Amino acid sequence: MPTINTNPRWWGWGVLAPAHGLDDCPDLWPALQKWLRIPQSSTNHQCPPAPLHDVHLCSSHLDAPLASSLRSILGDEAVRTDDPTRLAHSYGKSYGDLVRMRAGYVPNPPDAVVYPSDPSQIASVLTWASERGIAVIPFGGGTSLTGGVECTRSDRPVITLNMARLSQVLFVDTESMTARIQAGATGPEIESCLNSEGFTLGHFPQSFELSTLGGWIATRSVGRCAILYGGIDRLTQAIKVVTPTGLVETGAVHFTEPGPSLLHLLIGSEGSYGVIVEALMRIHRLPNARDYRIVRFSNWQDGVAACREIVLSNHLRPATLHLADPLEARILALTVPERCTRKGLLPGVLGRRPSLISSQGLSSEDVLLIAGFEGEPDWLKQQWSITLAICSGHGGAVSLKGADRFWECQLYRQPYLRDEMIARGIMVDTVTASSSWSDVCELYESVRGALSGAIATTGSGTGYLMTHLSNVHRHGTTLVTTYLATQTPDPSPLARQAQCETIRQAARDAILARGGLLAHNRLTEGNGLLGQTGHNRRFCARLHRSIKQTFDPVGILNPSLPDPL
Amino acid sequence: MPTINTNPRWWGWGVLAPAHGLDDCPDLWPALQKWLRIPQSSTNHQCPPAPLHDVHLCSSHLDAPLASSLRSILGDEAVRTDDPTRLAHSYGKSYGDLVRMRAGYVPNPPDAVVYPSDPSQIASVLTWASERGIAVIPFGGGTSLTGGVECTRSDRPVITLNMARLSQVLFVDTESMTARIQAGATGPEIESCLNSEGFTLGHFPQSFELSTLGGWIATRSVGRCAILYGGIDRLTQAIKVVTPTGLVETGAVHFTEPGPSLLHLLIGSEGSYGVIVEALMRIHRLPNARDYRIVRFSNWQDGVAACREIVLSNHLRPATLHLADPLEARILALTVPERCTRKGLLPGVLGRRPSLISSQGLSSEDVLLIAGFEGEPDWLKQQWSITLAICSGHGGAVSLKGADRFWECQLYRQPYLRDEMIARGIMVDTVTASSSWSDVCELYESVRGALSGAIATTGSGTGYLMTHLSNVHRHGTTLVTTYLATQTPDPSPLARQAQCETIRQAARDAILARGGLLAHNRLTEGNGLLGQTGHNRRFCARLHRSIKQTFDPVGILNPSLPDPL
Repeated sequence: MPTINTNPRWWGWGVLAPAHGLDDCPDLWPALQKWLRIPQSSTNHQCPPAPLHDVHLCSSHLDAPLASSLRSILGDEAVRTDDPTRLAHSYGKSYGDLVRMRAGYVPNPPDAVVYPSDPSQIASVLTWASERGIAVIPFGGGTSLTGGVECTRSDRPVITLNMARLSQVLFVDTESMTARIQAGATGPEIESCLNSEGFTLGHFPQSFELSTLGGWIATRSVGRCAILYGGIDRLTQAIKVVTPTGLVETGAVHFTEPGPSLLHLLIGSEGSYGVIVEALMRIHRLPNARDYRIVRFSNWQDGVAACREIVLSNHLRPATLHLADPLEARILALTVPERCTRKGLLPGVLGRRPSLISSQGLSSEDVLLIAGFEGEPDWLKQQWSITLAICSGHGGAVSLKGADRFWECQLYRQPYLRDEMIARGIMVDTVTASSSWSDVCELYESVRGALSGAIATTGSGTGYLMTHLSNVHRHGTTLVTTYLATQTPDPSPLARQAQCETIRQAARDAILARGGLLAHNRLTEGNGLLGQTGHNRRFCARLHRSIKQTFDPVGILNPSLPDPL
Repeated sequence: MPTINTNPRWWGWGVLAPAHGLDDCPDLWPALQKWLRIPQSSTNHQCPPAPLHDVHLCSSHLDAPLASSLRSILGDEAVRTDDPTRLAHSYGKSYGDLVRMRAGYVPNPPDAVVYPSDPSQIASVLTWASERGIAVIPFGGGTSLTGGVECTRSDRPVITLNMARLSQVLFVDTESMTARIQAGATGPEIESCLNSEGFTLGHFPQSFELSTLGGWIATRSVGRCAILYGGIDRLTQAIKVVTPTGLVETGAVHFTEPGPSLLHLLIGSEGSYGVIVEALMRIHRLPNARDYRIVRFSNWQDGVAACREIVLSNHLRPATLHLADPLEARILALTVPERCTRKGLLPGVLGRRPSLISSQGLSSEDVLLIAGFEGEPDWLKQQWSITLAICSGHGGAVSLKGADRFWECQLYRQPYLRDEMIARGIMVDTVTASSSWSDVCELYESVRGALSGAIATTGSGTGYLMTHLSNVHRHGTTLVTTYLATQTPDPSPLARQAQCETIRQAARDAILARGGLLAHNRLTEGNGLLGQTGHNRRFCARLHRSIKQTFDPVGILNPSLPDPL
């Protein structure tokens, strides 16, 4: 009997994270059962996927004349109103999305999904929709964690604009190290094309396998090598955006861009000002070697201090610095898949189970720093020699060498593990905060305090909180805290979503109270134009409205973004 | 008899560029006379400063009740309506400004100059002005090259808001490497404070001695070490802006800023959205050594290729790369002040006149690369060893070592030299274009072609054109072309200004026709929100209007910025 499938592999690629889940980490599940007080016997799926035939979608509001006029713009094949297609475009991939989807609770499917083949078709669709007041949701990989692809239903029809047919790397300028790329290209599509010419974009968010260039730009994405290559905002040199008012192109920004930045107004605009169709991206030479190692420190403060010193060194250019606190370090050690040590399935990595990062080898305060450099072999040696000197000054020593491929897989498999955990009744979500160095240790404590307090109030015990630093830079870092707890016994998907939201809100309040900044949140929760708090809030909301009004006078684009006024 | 004084030293500091002008470069003036065909006998000031008593300022439109209400906000001392103060705030420092000022032609003085002491006074002034429809021009160092401090007179009064009393470094966070600085602080004020704690902001535009943090942010400034430290847009973490609608603060942006960027909307807004009063700036450790050298290449293409290779190397982090073409190289060699070689007046530099960069030593195609690194001595050695290997691969060899202080002075003295040249009847101006690497050599030729053609049409012979690359980065560079020619014989300042504008316009057209981007131009000429061309232009102008309307509903701030609609 076919059921809803929320495993990421169902969504698309799945090539980078070989099929290893909880079964490949035999020590992980028993440990989680113990930490979260899940009865030993409970291996039942507590959040099972609904049978597909139980899923009821409301019928499409797109009546025959509307569908027909849309087909005359795009062609018959490019306009789909069948239920499986509508279902696949109903949700992003947040915890709330997944529990609702697993339950077969799908209140907001789009009325149609369209697949334009070029920017002029998109312009025609936006004109068509503006004339009729029909909502349009741009859709890349569908991996939004912030509700970006879901539109609360109202009377007016909703069209999802799937960008999959605009997926070409159009031109590579090897002299200027830039590439013109269509917005619907996914991470693997972009990298396989650039790699074949000896280049890389260098943007590797956790959603890399599925997410698209347009989605990265629309959400101001940051990837795992951003400290070397830059976040998507720095990688983007210019963009082309189709708005309901017409095509808008930013000049190809080089070093300076006099005047207020049009580019930075469009980056992060989450499809609410226009549809990003193409971008001129800064590319880099594909590094010919990588050297990733895991360094162990005996406590969090030492690890933090070492990270700061590494990133402040003018002599070092790391690609990755990821510091896992004691609780994340323990999980990390437990998720080294046994078969990768037995069969060497992860190329170029571990020949044996790395005892030093196994959970047995870690003391309760130990933290692990995953640090990676990419470039020429000689330079890598020199970089590591400086890095090790800094680390040993803080009591750190290398636990594992050659960890690059292990680390890459580790990141990409987390969504798969998350899906299995959700199936087994665990709530798992992440809250992300930017902090300056002078605040990071206190912010760490206050986020943890707020989360455990809030988890307790939802009746799920103490939960399990683990934090890492990523996007480490000269002036601060990002604190990423993942919280696990047993799902509320109420099997209703809305109750499960509400449990997670309550906890998340507590963390958010704690972050803002300390002057930290939410990252990885939707438009209205960041610290950009729409994420302002206090006395700025109403003013910035008015500013957004007047900008939105100029781009999209009828208000058809992503209308479910909350109006902050 | 006192006259108008346009020498920069009259404006303020003048400490960084010791008093050396044309007289200190005995070979320069004869060479210019020859190249520009100025008669040997002509050393008369062809553009002499007007006697002060000949300068007529229209009387202040600020009547007694208005002045009195303003004094009640700011105090008596902080509101000035005397002519010397109004005169000193009438102009920026473009060529057109200087020839008009020298002629005593001052049609647009402000009606009053006010000196607020804190942000709340600025808020009160903006409310006061909004209620009365009075124009307000924020004023930092007064070094605008783009008309930013001049307001074309109309019936309504104009107030200049001098930021000099907000000049404190408020707080240095040594852990997070940031500093909270008031917008009216000048370059030397900021550096002397930060240097005393072992830090630097690392922002050194040519106007450094006089210009202010607020001015840098309002114009999206780029300094001579921007490839190491970043332009002002990257150095600025957060800003506080007083607008006619109230105080607006951006969140302290760390690595990511979800949503459209409020910060990047305010950076570059040239005082038209609000008055920048304070910023949280990223600071760096003061380097404990510098190693600047001048490398000679036998032609332009080789120099360009070497620059590109240096900046693409993952192993190098230069602070400065400045490549002077053959004609700029010749001037550079002629402007090494003789007394700095005789008396060693420039600390830590040349013991003898450096023969290799003297004009005699240069062949007609030779170009000079000024390259500088800053940091630990050992690291500097290693950086130079890699750099020299790259340079020699392109036929380059070191001409001069220990050039850091020489280079710094060379940059800061150029405005002084310019003033003397203008006095002697030479038109001197600069046009700046951003380019990708794949376009740079063709853009170089087409800008030169456009400039010499235009100079000829103004009846000033062939002129003397010299170009350098600066702001070199991985994907392109900025081409800075300085053009010298004899001033039009018509002594009217408007004729002289028009001559320069005609030539400038030709260069601008050539740059835009090749897809290059103007930098160093006013708001409406860059490639940001207001510098769009073609089909974007009208749309972006509407967007600016709606944003401006939200910040400044009455339209009091910098109203003389041209409305691009």
